[in-house]
Amino acid sequence: MVSERMKKIERTFDEELYLTSETGRYLYHTYAEHLPIIDYHCHLNPREIAEDHEFVDLGEMWLSGDHYKWRCMRTFGIDERYITGDASYYEKYRAFVSILPKLVGNPIYIWCALELKRYFDIDEPLTDANADAVYEKTCAMIREQHITRRWCMERSNVRLVSTTEDPIDDLRWHKIIAESDCKTRVITAFRPDKAMFIDKPGFPAYVEKLSEAAGMPIQSFQDLLDALESRLKYFQAVTGTTVSDDGIPFFAWADYTDAEAEAIFKKGLLGQPLSQQEADQYRSAFLFNMGRIYNRNHYVMQLHIGTYLDANTSRVERIGQSTGFDCSDDATAVISVGKLLDALTRIEELPKVILYPLDGTKIENWAILAAGFCDSGTKGKVQLGAPWWFNDTVYGIERQFAACANLYPLSLSVGMLTDSRSFISYPRHELYRRILCNYLGELVEKGAYFSSEENLADIIRDICVRNTNEFFDFGVRDLV
Amino acid sequence: MVSERMKKIERTFDEELYLTSETGRYLYHTYAEHLPIIDYHCHLNPREIAEDHEFVDLGEMWLSGDHYKWRCMRTFGIDERYITGDASYYEKYRAFVSILPKLVGNPIYIWCALELKRYFDIDEPLTDANADAVYEKTCAMIREQHITRRWCMERSNVRLVSTTEDPIDDLRWHKIIAESDCKTRVITAFRPDKAMFIDKPGFPAYVEKLSEAAGMPIQSFQDLLDALESRLKYFQAVTGTTVSDDGIPFFAWADYTDAEAEAIFKKGLLGQPLSQQEADQYRSAFLFNMGRIYNRNHYVMQLHIGTYLDANTSRVERIGQSTGFDCSDDATAVISVGKLLDALTRIEELPKVILYPLDGTKIENWAILAAGFCDSGTKGKVQLGAPWWFNDTVYGIERQFAACANLYPLSLSVGMLTDSRSFISYPRHELYRRILCNYLGELVEKGAYFSSEENLADIIRDICVRNTNEFFDFGVRDLV
Amino acid sequence: MVSERMKKIERTFDEELYLTSETGRYLYHTYAEHLPIIDYHCHLNPREIAEDHEFVDLGEMWLSGDHYKWRCMRTFGIDERYITGDASYYEKYRAFVSILPKLVGNPIYIWCALELKRYFDIDEPLTDANADAVYEKTCAMIREQHITRRWCMERSNVRLVSTTEDPIDDLRWHKIIAESDCKTRVITAFRPDKAMFIDKPGFPAYVEKLSEAAGMPIQSFQDLLDALESRLKYFQAVTGTTVSDDGIPFFAWADYTDAEAEAIFKKGLLGQPLSQQEADQYRSAFLFNMGRIYNRNHYVMQLHIGTYLDANTSRVERIGQSTGFDCSDDATAVISVGKLLDALTRIEELPKVILYPLDGTKIENWAILAAGFCDSGTKGKVQLGAPWWFNDTVYGIERQFAACANLYPLSLSVGMLTDSRSFISYPRHELYRRILCNYLGELVEKGAYFSSEENLADIIRDICVRNTNEFFDFGVRDLV
Repeated sequence: MVSERMKKIERTFDEELYLTSETGRYLYHTYAEHLPIIDYHCHLNPREIAEDHEFVDLGEMWLSGDHYKWRCMRTFGIDERYITGDASYYEKYRAFVSILPKLVGNPIYIWCALELKRYFDIDEPLTDANADAVYEKTCAMIREQHITRRWCMERSNVRLVSTTEDPIDDLRWHKIIAESDCKTRVITAFRPDKAMFIDKPGFPAYVEKLSEAAGMPIQSFQDLLDALESRLKYFQAVTGTTVSDDGIPFFAWADYTDAEAEAIFKKGLLGQPLSQQEADQYRSAFLFNMGRIYNRNHYVMQLHIGTYLDANTSRVERIGQSTGFDCSDDATAVISVGKLLDALTRIEELPKVILYPLDGTKIENWAILAAGFCDSGTKGKVQLGAPWWFNDTVYGIERQFAACANLYPLSLSVGMLTDSRSFISYPRHELYRRILCNYLGELVEKGAYFSSEENLADIIRDICVRNTNEFFDFGVRDLV
Repeated sequence: MVSERMKKIERTFDEELYLTSETGRYLYHTYAEHLPIIDYHCHLNPREIAEDHEFVDLGEMWLSGDHYKWRCMRTFGIDERYITGDASYYEKYRAFVSILPKLVGNPIYIWCALELKRYFDIDEPLTDANADAVYEKTCAMIREQHITRRWCMERSNVRLVSTTEDPIDDLRWHKIIAESDCKTRVITAFRPDKAMFIDKPGFPAYVEKLSEAAGMPIQSFQDLLDALESRLKYFQAVTGTTVSDDGIPFFAWADYTDAEAEAIFKKGLLGQPLSQQEADQYRSAFLFNMGRIYNRNHYVMQLHIGTYLDANTSRVERIGQSTGFDCSDDATAVISVGKLLDALTRIEELPKVILYPLDGTKIENWAILAAGFCDSGTKGKVQLGAPWWFNDTVYGIERQFAACANLYPLSLSVGMLTDSRSFISYPRHELYRRILCNYLGELVEKGAYFSSEENLADIIRDICVRNTNEFFDFGVRDLV
Repeated sequence: MVSERMKKIERTFDEELYLTSETGRYLYHTYAEHLPIIDYHCHLNPREIAEDHEFVDLGEMWLSGDHYKWRCMRTFGIDERYITGDASYYEKYRAFVSILPKLVGNPIYIWCALELKRYFDIDEPLTDANADAVYEKTCAMIREQHITRRWCMERSNVRLVSTTEDPIDDLRWHKIIAESDCKTRVITAFRPDKAMFIDKPGFPAYVEKLSEAAGMPIQSFQDLLDALESRLKYFQAVTGTTVSDDGIPFFAWADYTDAEAEAIFKKGLLGQPLSQQEADQYRSAFLFNMGRIYNRNHYVMQLHIGTYLDANTSRVERIGQSTGFDCSDDATAVISVGKLLDALTRIEELPKVILYPLDGTKIENWAILAAGFCDSGTKGKVQLGAPWWFNDTVYGIERQFAACANLYPLSLSVGMLTDSRSFISYPRHELYRRILCNYLGELVEKGAYFSSEENLADIIRDICVRNTNEFFDFGVRDLV
C-alpha cells in the first residue's frame, strides 16, 4: 500500500504543490492562480529586453547568469569550467542536470520543476536519463514558438518589471524598450551604492564618472548629492520610476556633523585612508541624505541590509563579483537602521521604506523596527520586503508569514519579487502565492481567522498585486 | 465541496481554536480549560482596580491604553487623532474595526475574537457592517451586568494579579484595594529601573524623590541601595509581594570596584556626563546589588532584557512613552547576563531569576544560560519567562515550547502572564493553554511521550498555575 | 472516543516514532532502519573500550558521565550528591527516574526510551513505580548477556568510532584496542585546543608537555606548529585518523604578521598578560596554520564554534569542567570564520572543513558561509556539521534540514554523530534518521520532490553513512 502511494506521488509535477490544506487549495486556485505579476525588483539586463533575442537553449536560460545555480554546482565539486568556464551551454546543462535530483529540499529543485512545467509543459522529473530528450524538446520549442526574453515575460503575465541601474547609466536601453512594442512596462531602480563605498579604491574614479553623467562638477559632498538627485530625476523622467535600491553591508550608525561629512568626503575623493569611524559617519550621512532625496522625489527607499559581499576574495578576483561568493553578515544591529529612520522622522522627511535584511534569522527584530516607524497617512509606510536572496525559500517565506504577521500586518505587504537575473524566474511568484494561500488556509482551518471569504480574497489580491501597485504608485491598470 | 468547507469553517468563533490534534483537544478540555489564573506580571492601573468603575464602552476597553493596537493602527496609516488623539471612544472603535478583518495572522485578531466571546458571548466576526450592532450590544451588556474592572477579573477566575510600581510609589491604591472586597488578590512588582538609568537627565531628581519616599538621605551608591531595600521591604509589608521587575535595555557587563561604583554614582548625582564604560559599570553594579537584595528578601528577580525603548524619538516626544514606539534590541550578548548570574552565584547570593529576552530569535541561548545556573534545592531556579511582548504570539509560544523544552524542562515553567494594561486580556492565558495542550498532544501522537495521562495532567496543571504559586510562594489556595 | 485514543497512544514505545508521514515511514523502514553507523565524533574513553568491562548497572550506563542529564537534574533542584556526588549509582538512577516523566519535549526523554528499547527491549514508560523492576531486569540482562562497552557498539552495528584526544596523548589505549578483537574500528580526533588557549594560566606548562610528547624543543610559534604536526602525523600513523576537533569559543579574526605571532607566543610562554587584540591575533594565526597542516596531511578540519565554556565559574571550580555548566556564545560573527576560510583559500590550502556553530539560531548564516567556500574537485568541501550539543534535538535537526537544505544541498551532508560520552547513545543516529526520512517523506507528499524512489534511497544512504565514509576517506567496506 505504501509502495502504491510512492508510485502515485512521486512521478510527476503536481498542481497541488505545497497546498496541504483544503482551504489553501481553494484559495489559491480561486483567487491567486491567475493574477498578473508586478516584479518591482530584479536584475534583468535591459539590453536583453531591448534586443529580445531568442534563447539559444535551456542551458543559456538556466546557466548563463544564475549565481544561485553556480554556487550550488560548486558545492558538488563540479569543475569551474562547467560552471562559469568555457564549456558550452549544453555541457553546462548536462553538468547541472547531473546534480538536480540530489537537490531535495533546495529551492532550485522546485524552481526548475516549475520552469519546465510553465514554459515547456514538462511534467516528468529531469535526470541524466532524459536530459538529452528534454534538451532537444526545449530547443525545438524555443525555435517553434520563437521564445525570446519578452515571450517569457508575457507568458507569465508580467505587467511591470524594474531593473536596477547605476546613476551613471544613460538608460539608452530603457529608451529603446519604451519606444518598442514591449507589452511589459520596464522601469529601473536607482542604485547609488558606489557613491556610498567611499572606502573602496574605485571611489574617486566613480565620482568623476558621475560628474560627467550629471553634467556638473563634484567637489563637495553636497555636490555629490546634487548630482545624484539630478540623475534620480532623470531616471524618473525616462522610466517613470519610484524605486530605489540601496545595498548596505555591515552598517553602524555614527553621528556626524555636516562639516565632518564634507571633510570625510574630501579625504575620500583624494583616495586618503579613512578610519572605521569616518567610514561609518560617511555612510550614515549618505543614507540620511539619500532618504531626504527619495522622500521629496516620491521614491520608495529599498534598503538591502547586511550583505557580506565578496567573502571568498580570491575566487572573486578570478571569476568576478556576483558569481556566487557572497555571504550574509550577522552583525548589523537593528538600532543602526533605527537611528537612520529616527533621524529622517525627526525632520518629517522619512520616505516610504522597505527593509530587506539578509540575515533572516533575526527577521522579527526588523519587523518590529518597521512597525515602530509607521505613521499617519501612509499604509505600511515602513515595511519588510519579501524574503530576499538566501531567504527566498519555502522556509524563509513561511517564517516571514508566521513570525511577522504577528508584528506588522501581513495584509499590508507589497508581496513578492524575483530579484533575479533570469527571464524564467517568474514562477517564484507562483511559489510565494501557493505558500501564502496555504498559510491563510491553515489559519482558517485552525479557527484563527473567521472573517468572510471576501475579506480573504481581498487580502490575497492586495498582497499579490494591489499593494505593490498602490505603494509605488505605479498606476498599472486592470490588475484584478 | 471545497466551497462548502469554506462556508462551514469561516463563519464563527470555534471552541476548538488551535487544537489541531485530537489528543490536544482532549487535554485542553479535560485539564486546562477551567483552571484559574494567576497573572503575576501586568501593568494594570491599581487606581482603576480600587475605584472599580464601570467601563464606558468597548472603545474604552480596547483602545484607552493598548499600545499594541495603537501601533497596529499606525501601520495602516490611520490618523493619530483616532489612535491616541481627541476622537471619541466610539470613533476610535470604528477606526479600529475598519482594520480588524485585515489582521489575519496577527494576535490582535484572535485576542479580540476571544475577548468578544468570553466577555460578551459574541461568536460572529466583527466588521464595519456589524460594528454598530456590536457596539450597542456591548454597551447594553456593560450597563446591565455592571461590567467593571473587577468584574472582568472575576469573570476570568483571576486569583492574583501583580501590578508594577516604582519604588517611590506610596501604594495608596493597593492599600485601598486590600481593604475592599476585591475578590482578586492584588500585589505589585517592585520596579527600580529609574535608579539604574544613571545616564538619563532625570536621574538626580529621581534620587531626590526616592530619598523622600524612603525617608533617608541618599549621598552614596550604598545609600541608594539602602533606600531601595527599605522601599522593597515596604512593598512586601503592604502587599506581600515577592516579585521584582527589572528592565534592561542593551546591557554589557563591565567589571567594577566598589570605589568605582561610588565614584560613578556621584558623577551621576551631579548630572555629569558618563562614559559608556562608566554607565556599563554602574548598571553592572546596580543589578548585582539588586540581586543580592532580592535574594535576602526572597524576591524573584525578573529580568526583562534587550528593549530598544523610545526608538522613534520625535513621536515619543509628541505622543508619549509606551505608546507604541519601542522596538527590540538584538545586540545584548548572553555572556553579559551570564556574568551577572555568575557573580551572584560565586557569593552564593543568586536569587530565583526569570529571564525575559525581548529578542525571541535568540531564545535558545537564553534557555541554555538559564539551565547553566540552576542549583540544588530550588526547582527551576533560573528559568525563561513567558514569551514576552513582541513574542506573545502563537509563533513565539510554539517556538519557546519546541526550541526550549529541549534545553530546560518545560514542565518547570511558571507559564503565562499578560504583561497587559487591559482588564480583558486574560484570554491570552487561554490561548497559551490551548497551544500548550496542542503541543503536548502532538508529542503524544508522534510517540514522543508515552508516560501516563496523570503525568500529563500534572504537567499541565503545574505549568498553568501550580508552578507559579510555588515559585513565588504566593500561597494561593484551592487552585486545582 | 478521545479517551480511547489516549489509552491507545500513550502506553508504550512506538516503532513509528516521529514518522508522521506515510512516505516517511516507508522510506525509514525500507532504506534507513538497518544501515550501520559511523560515529565520526564522540568523547568515549578509549581506556573503557580497551578494558571492555561489563557495566555495573543502568545507573552507571546513564549517569556516570552524562552532563546532559546532570544539568537537567539540577534544573529540578536535586541535591548534587545524587548528580555528581557520592551517592550510589542506584540512588542516582532513582533520583533521575523521579524526574524522567516530567521531561516532556526534552530529548533526554526520548533518548532514554530508545535506549531502554534498543538495549533492553523495554517498551513501557519508566516511572517511580516500575523503577526497581526495570533496575533489576536491566542488571540481570547485563549479567546474562555480558553487556560490555563493545557489546553496545556491536549491538548498534557501529562500524567506526572516533574518540577525541589531546596531542600529548600517547594513544596507548588505542594501540591496545587495535591489537584486540574489537569489532568496531576505533580512531581518534586530534584536538589541539590547549595550544590555542594562550591566555589561560596553564599554557606554558602545556607547551612543555607537548614538547616532551613530540620529543622536540618548543621555543617559537613555528616550533609549536612543528610539534603539533609531528603529533598529528603520529595520530595518523597509529589510528589512521583524518579527523580534527577544534573548539573555538568567542572568536574575532584579527590580522597579524608572522613576527607578531611569534612575539605574542613568546609572551604567552612567559605567562605574560596579553591584550584582547593579541589573543585574537594568536588564535587567528593558530587556526590559519592548523588549517594548512590539516590540508597537507589530508585531515578534515572540524570547527566547533561559539562555546561559552565554564560560564558558572564557581560550580566548575567545585565540580569540574564539562559537568554541565557550559553555555553558548551568541556573539561570534560569521565574518570572523569567513576571514579564516578566505585566507586559507587565497593560498590554495583550504582543507575540507565542517562547521559546527553552537548558536543554532543563526544556523543559516553558517550554511551560507559554507557554500561560499566550496570549490572544484571536492564534494561538500566546506559544510555544516550535524546539529551539535544543545542543538541535538528534534527541533534543531528539523531546523537544520528545513532551513539549510535551501542553502547547501542536504544530500551532501556527512550526517549524524553522537558527540557523546555514553556507550548507549547510538539511538541518536536512529532518531536523526527518522527525522530525515520524515522530512523527505513530507517533501514528497507536498509535491516538492518527485524524482525517482532510487534517487531518494541514494540520498538517504549517502547522508546516513556513505558521505561520511567518502568525505573522511575512512574506507569502511560493505556499508550498504
